[in-house]
Amino acid sequence: MGYEALKSEKSVLPLFFEPESIAVIGSLKEGYFGGYVVVKTLLNAGFTGKIYPINPSYQEILGLKAYPSIREISGKIDLAIIMINRRFVLNVIKECAEKEIKAVIVVSDGFAERDAEGARLQNEMVKIAREAGIRIIGPNTAGIVNSANGLIPDPYEPGYEKVKPGGVAICAQTGMINPQAFPYADLHYGVSKICDYGNKCDLDECDLLEYLESDPTTKVITMYLESIRDGQRFLDISKKVSRQKPILILKSGRTKEGARVSASHTGALAVDDRIFSAACQQAGIIRIETFHEFFELPKIFSLQPLPKGNRLGIVTFTGGAGVLAIDEGAKYGLTAARLSPEIAGRLNAIFPGLGKAVVDIGPPMAVNNYMEIYSDVLKTVLADDQIDCLFNVIWTSPFKEFVEEYLKFYESLHGGYQKTIATWIYGPSIPLVNEMSGRMEDLGFPVFSELEAAIKALGIAYQYSNRKKGEK
Amino acid sequence: MGYEALKSEKSVLPLFFEPESIAVIGSLKEGYFGGYVVVKTLLNAGFTGKIYPINPSYQEILGLKAYPSIREISGKIDLAIIMINRRFVLNVIKECAEKEIKAVIVVSDGFAERDAEGARLQNEMVKIAREAGIRIIGPNTAGIVNSANGLIPDPYEPGYEKVKPGGVAICAQTGMINPQAFPYADLHYGVSKICDYGNKCDLDECDLLEYLESDPTTKVITMYLESIRDGQRFLDISKKVSRQKPILILKSGRTKEGARVSASHTGALAVDDRIFSAACQQAGIIRIETFHEFFELPKIFSLQPLPKGNRLGIVTFTGGAGVLAIDEGAKYGLTAARLSPEIAGRLNAIFPGLGKAVVDIGPPMAVNNYMEIYSDVLKTVLADDQIDCLFNVIWTSPFKEFVEEYLKFYESLHGGYQKTIATWIYGPSIPLVNEMSGRMEDLGFPVFSELEAAIKALGIAYQYSNRKKGEK
Repeated sequence: MGYEALKSEKSVLPLFFEPESIAVIGSLKEGYFGGYVVVKTLLNAGFTGKIYPINPSYQEILGLKAYPSIREISGKIDLAIIMINRRFVLNVIKECAEKEIKAVIVVSDGFAERDAEGARLQNEMVKIAREAGIRIIGPNTAGIVNSANGLIPDPYEPGYEKVKPGGVAICAQTGMINPQAFPYADLHYGVSKICDYGNKCDLDECDLLEYLESDPTTKVITMYLESIRDGQRFLDISKKVSRQKPILILKSGRTKEGARVSASHTGALAVDDRIFSAACQQAGIIRIETFHEFFELPKIFSLQPLPKGNRLGIVTFTGGAGVLAIDEGAKYGLTAARLSPEIAGRLNAIFPGLGKAVVDIGPPMAVNNYMEIYSDVLKTVLADDQIDCLFNVIWTSPFKEFVEEYLKFYESLHGGYQKTIATWIYGPSIPLVNEMSGRMEDLGFPVFSELEAAIKALGIAYQYSNRKKGEK
Repeated sequence: MGYEALKSEKSVLPLFFEPESIAVIGSLKEGYFGGYVVVKTLLNAGFTGKIYPINPSYQEILGLKAYPSIREISGKIDLAIIMINRRFVLNVIKECAEKEIKAVIVVSDGFAERDAEGARLQNEMVKIAREAGIRIIGPNTAGIVNSANGLIPDPYEPGYEKVKPGGVAICAQTGMINPQAFPYADLHYGVSKICDYGNKCDLDECDLLEYLESDPTTKVITMYLESIRDGQRFLDISKKVSRQKPILILKSGRTKEGARVSASHTGALAVDDRIFSAACQQAGIIRIETFHEFFELPKIFSLQPLPKGNRLGIVTFTGGAGVLAIDEGAKYGLTAARLSPEIAGRLNAIFPGLGKAVVDIGPPMAVNNYMEIYSDVLKTVLADDQIDCLFNVIWTSPFKEFVEEYLKFYESLHGGYQKTIATWIYGPSIPLVNEMSGRMEDLGFPVFSELEAAIKALGIAYQYSNRKKGEK
């Protein structure tokens, strides 16, 4: 979709995420950072739009013609990516205006986050952009990603080619979420869009939320925020968006000291944490607590159906995990499901003593036809209408054969049950646990690195589902 | 140390952890569970004491002579490990009494955790043992480990041979901590002793604490508890032990429901959680919150010196991580260190703008002599006497050469600075991050899987250090 068609659109963001042509303004020297890396990464990722490298010192780069300036390009340009010294950025923005470019990512740093001169330059830049109808992401950003069209204009070398497509959109006020920082190639749940909005001198979290609300590839939105630009607008938009898709937010700058440092880091003022908490509550935002959760929790929404209630079933290899799970579940309003008498009876018939709230498959483990028992038990538990969601603990054993048998079983199970399943795998071989986790997720069963994260995922899925019910 | 020498010792636990001879009573059939696995695992781990497999159906197993019963063994036996049907356990305990065995691990389950008959059998077993001066670990346990002497009598197949020796002792009321469940071979910080005390019909958390207090290989004790057998004794002992070594405790059964399930799982009654919290406070116990922390946090104590104060230095590749770290540190009383003017000046001379509370090495990353800058920055920060502990964020890049350069630097650094350093590594390649994390820990620098865990490790190390100071 080119910018001609988009002039009438309410949002400019499709120009950023679905450009047909990109100008890359920056150093084209071979290395780990800059325009060269952007061009290389776009080509590697299979981006099929036009790429115009801009640098007066080059004739050609990676098989593409290089241009001394934007002015020399005859075709239209949907998106410009600028990564040059701050002193020269304003001039290039002016050239973008002349060329009628409407979408610009300013990777360059040294603006409001650095000093008074940087703040002045940033204000000036916004003024020029506003007058020209240009929208900006950044400055001080590592940019964006669209996994669907190979748009990975990462200014830092990521070391891999593809970002796995999936339903999770990731937005943050930091480059810690971009491909050079996080191994998206090894991710099994996949992402739809990534956006580091940097200093957000223009486009911000609200614009992203609005865009992602109607993005068909995005099922869940996860955001890291240090500050909110416009509290009321944020509240209104997230209230609207959270009715359609879950929004998970990690907010830093919660303490006074953190807020002070945050201000010096992206040049933005932090919001009082209590006010922010109340706003999240009102707007239906799911607040998360750690950077690790930021990448772990969204997959429950992108891979599994929402739970219909709070009744937690537990299948485990050890009673200890069951007790920890029940404790943890209580934090989110989950209660240990009481199995229906019929299901409890069927479980006890499979192996004596299995028909309890915590279905402990530890005892039958020494049995010969163990995988048969395992399959029967899991299918039986999943058939219980007294259960809304399932915490599923798998012990891998050190043997690859077992892993293959488990996977065969889960493949056969796929899609058959309307319960929310969160799995935690442990065992004596890290490579085997990792392999099995990835392959389980490829089958649609999210696997969490920690017992507590698996329970929290079920807990927030229940809370979101419950809120949605209340809104109907 | 044999049992003759130990008869006069106050604790029987050396007989369990340093036996010169072990009788293994259970199935010797080749498989993944039972006496066969115990014998095989002991041999593989290089256990040099005598091993007596006991089973009337076998003449020989894995090159060792098998005996029909304990009675037929002529030599002394320090430790017996029993894994047979509960119906036959009492008889074997009686045989142990005749043979003057003083240390018995009862792996068998189906006791107080199962039903009334099991509870009766358990009481009976304890009675017989008391009369004979036998001490029991278990029943319903996966046993113990001593990494120093190859004592890995794991009844389940772990799939690897060695448990890496180190300073962390791990005790729990669950088999989730034993070699078949956790990849100790891949662990880089190493463990000293492991003990799953199961139903703790006799020996319990207090006995373990007393033993580990004087165990020279143990630097820090981490425990998972579902219940406390004797509150007053636990309080007294942990108060005493925590003066010598940090004790980290994960307690489940915190909610009513969790406590109820816990009771049905190991047959023990849970203690009120508020009372337990107060007791921890009094006794100087560090309370941890998740099963993941159970394995992550202790290494700060086993690998690093205690911080002298609460001033947190931060070296990072991204401002976002700095803000999150300061927020998180505030929870534990850590404050962002203000660099001394001299150090700030030296940092600014290395690269403009570096001399802040959050030393952000992101900006110089595009520079050619980057690793030189990195080394200078880290050494300079570590030389600041305004800093007590350091949160160290490393971005790996996708390139092996960089990892090697980092490691060369950390190798040169080792031992030179009296600060507590916790490292968090992230990057676009999981295998590279994992490799570097392991090798950093081999060099003595603990690496945490999450930003928040690294900060918490520093936080609890500070709190422990602070408490110790107050006690002097």
